[in-house]
Amino acid sequence: MNIEQMIAKRTQLFGPNNPIFYEKPLHLVKGDGVWLTDADGKKYLDCYNNVPTVGHCHPHVVEALYNQAKELNTHTRYLHDNILQYAERLLSTYDDSLNRLVLTCTGSEANELALRLIRNLTGGQGVICTNATYHGNTAAVAQLSSIFEPAEGYGPHIRTVRWPDQYRTPDMTDVQTLTDIYLDDIRQAIQSLKEAGIPFAGMILCPIYANEGLPNIPEGYLEQATKIVRDAGGLIIADEVQAGFGRTGKMWGHQSTGFVPDIATMGKPMGNGHPLAGLVARDELVDRFREKDMYFNTFGGNPVSCAVGNAVLDVLENENLISNAASTGEYVLSGLRKLAKKHSIIGDVRGKGLFFGVDLVKDHISKEPAVEETRKLINDMKEHGILISSIGEFNNVLKIRPPLPFNKENAELLLEGINHCLSRL
Amino acid sequence: MNIEQMIAKRTQLFGPNNPIFYEKPLHLVKGDGVWLTDADGKKYLDCYNNVPTVGHCHPHVVEALYNQAKELNTHTRYLHDNILQYAERLLSTYDDSLNRLVLTCTGSEANELALRLIRNLTGGQGVICTNATYHGNTAAVAQLSSIFEPAEGYGPHIRTVRWPDQYRTPDMTDVQTLTDIYLDDIRQAIQSLKEAGIPFAGMILCPIYANEGLPNIPEGYLEQATKIVRDAGGLIIADEVQAGFGRTGKMWGHQSTGFVPDIATMGKPMGNGHPLAGLVARDELVDRFREKDMYFNTFGGNPVSCAVGNAVLDVLENENLISNAASTGEYVLSGLRKLAKKHSIIGDVRGKGLFFGVDLVKDHISKEPAVEETRKLINDMKEHGILISSIGEFNNVLKIRPPLPFNKENAELLLEGINHCLSRL
Repeated sequence: MNIEQMIAKRTQLFGPNNPIFYEKPLHLVKGDGVWLTDADGKKYLDCYNNVPTVGHCHPHVVEALYNQAKELNTHTRYLHDNILQYAERLLSTYDDSLNRLVLTCTGSEANELALRLIRNLTGGQGVICTNATYHGNTAAVAQLSSIFEPAEGYGPHIRTVRWPDQYRTPDMTDVQTLTDIYLDDIRQAIQSLKEAGIPFAGMILCPIYANEGLPNIPEGYLEQATKIVRDAGGLIIADEVQAGFGRTGKMWGHQSTGFVPDIATMGKPMGNGHPLAGLVARDELVDRFREKDMYFNTFGGNPVSCAVGNAVLDVLENENLISNAASTGEYVLSGLRKLAKKHSIIGDVRGKGLFFGVDLVKDHISKEPAVEETRKLINDMKEHGILISSIGEFNNVLKIRPPLPFNKENAELLLEGINHCLSRL
Repeated sequence: MNIEQMIAKRTQLFGPNNPIFYEKPLHLVKGDGVWLTDADGKKYLDCYNNVPTVGHCHPHVVEALYNQAKELNTHTRYLHDNILQYAERLLSTYDDSLNRLVLTCTGSEANELALRLIRNLTGGQGVICTNATYHGNTAAVAQLSSIFEPAEGYGPHIRTVRWPDQYRTPDMTDVQTLTDIYLDDIRQAIQSLKEAGIPFAGMILCPIYANEGLPNIPEGYLEQATKIVRDAGGLIIADEVQAGFGRTGKMWGHQSTGFVPDIATMGKPMGNGHPLAGLVARDELVDRFREKDMYFNTFGGNPVSCAVGNAVLDVLENENLISNAASTGEYVLSGLRKLAKKHSIIGDVRGKGLFFGVDLVKDHISKEPAVEETRKLINDMKEHGILISSIGEFNNVLKIRPPLPFNKENAELLLEGINHCLSRL
């Protein structure tokens, strides 16, 4: 089948409006490290995919998958070493207060359970999220999806707050005043729930606000924001699905932005593509829930998934990928800032580890989002052999988030590619 | 670590009340076909696990997993052959009206989405399930869990009905009258929702009522039950997580019990242990939902999961496992009926394909469930080298559900084991 036939077949089998990338979609057949190959043999530098975080088809992870799949794969109502080893190792990467693990298969399942845990412990239903975020696809979690309105519409128990944007902000430059404005959003959200008679459960946030466009978070904002929530009796869920596993140059996003959550949820990179996800939480949250609820996840924590999870941690350590994320990240960030001086369409460059947001604007005064140019650039970059995407409230922020083995040579190709495609825009 | 140490470690890492099997839990290290081996080298005949449905660690499935994991594993926003082949093949096993597929990772995710689909299409919230069932672990789906009350308690929009029990029934023997009584439960549930002002969305059921205890369903009950629901504007979700993929001697449980649902959800056996699940539905259900909702599942339908799904279908076909389920199933059923004549504790023997329920009672008149004897028997059977469990509203029904390559020699071991352990009870 050619690409048009494959697209037609997809629509026939899955229905219209199933999401697909690029105006001319990609038919990929091979992955290796930071490289992807399409059916015509054309190679692409992958600067988008965070799921294969230790590199596409990493042999250590693939062999761990294979070796355990040959031996045994069953559920956690039998005992097995893999889950104990994995759990102990994973929990050791967190603050001591986060001392319970629950394994699931997807980030949606992890966030779904996190909501159940905080609602159970607080007795509240009211939850705060930002106004440009996404946390998953279940009915409860889709209520927190402010970038894609769920089919059900929004219920009464969610309040959205502005994410802490320092670039396209209220008209002022004083960071302290700005921080106060954003913190007031949270205070008002809590007050609004109170006035509506909806008891407060807490706040969920991506510690680096990835979907929002990866803002530079004002110093002290998260420390104060989490304090406001806790003072009102709420709990904090850090959604580490995008920020976690070394992406930011630290193991966990919240460790790079300075707060300790009550629950951290994990997903995408956790199994390098294998469906593995979960959460860590304070014991009180899990234990009080398990007193009442027979929570069981058939595939969650099976020996194969745990072997894969362990192998991902091995590679992160053995290949120093977290420090690589920090150092190569700095290198890319510096290169992007140089490009910003050359190309006036670049309004702002932001980044943390190997996760970058390049905010494209019509002009530097209005900061009007260059939405159409962003769309064109992403498609041009693909034709040029480099895969990126877009994020942000206005979908005008280049989303650059390569697998973590990304090196300086790869970075040069990326920077040259952006320069080339911006020059021809 | 010994077993006691492993259990202590589990409690430390996952908290108390995480589910585990047997009074002295099993530490398994190896699976092969219908056999499992523990850390001491003791072998167990697996008569419980439906997830490794084509046999533990089936080489064809494991090699398919490995070969694709080495090549490429990425999400469905790129094109790939595996998902198209798998989708076409899977849909061809269903009634033509079920012509859209959505792939997820777990049965909970599939049932969660199914609820979103029927609620979206009908505009209703009210759902009917039985009074002794389980459909998964998300907040919305846990509302349908009548065997384990969810931590949140039950909301106002669910109605439970009695499952169609012909054994432990209202005091009568006329099947037609009995059927009418059970059908009236559904009519009353619909009426109750109407009176509460809750618009009706539909009914979810396992087509073989597995958790309920695998009843012999009265002739015509499901045909009429589904008609009553549809006449009231409701839709039917068949939860094929336990009944599907040949378990009953037909590909789908609903094909063995005579109705066509609007949605069929799939899980456990779909990837032989790999986290693969999904649903098929009438196009209207999926397409109307996708008009409004940007549903995306990161791991759902990835090339590795689809390679595994395809390999499971290969084995089902190549090893004639569905007809084996029918023929070996008949053989086991006949043997269980012989045992029932010998052991008066056996009140009723039921089965469909390779799924059996043996109802243990204090006596044949009161039919009082022999709950304690059931618990003891299951633990004795494990010590004897045979793994089974229990189901049913009273947890007094032996749950026997081996991997599908189960043959007559295995069946003899099972029957001898039950005979032996019942004799010593």
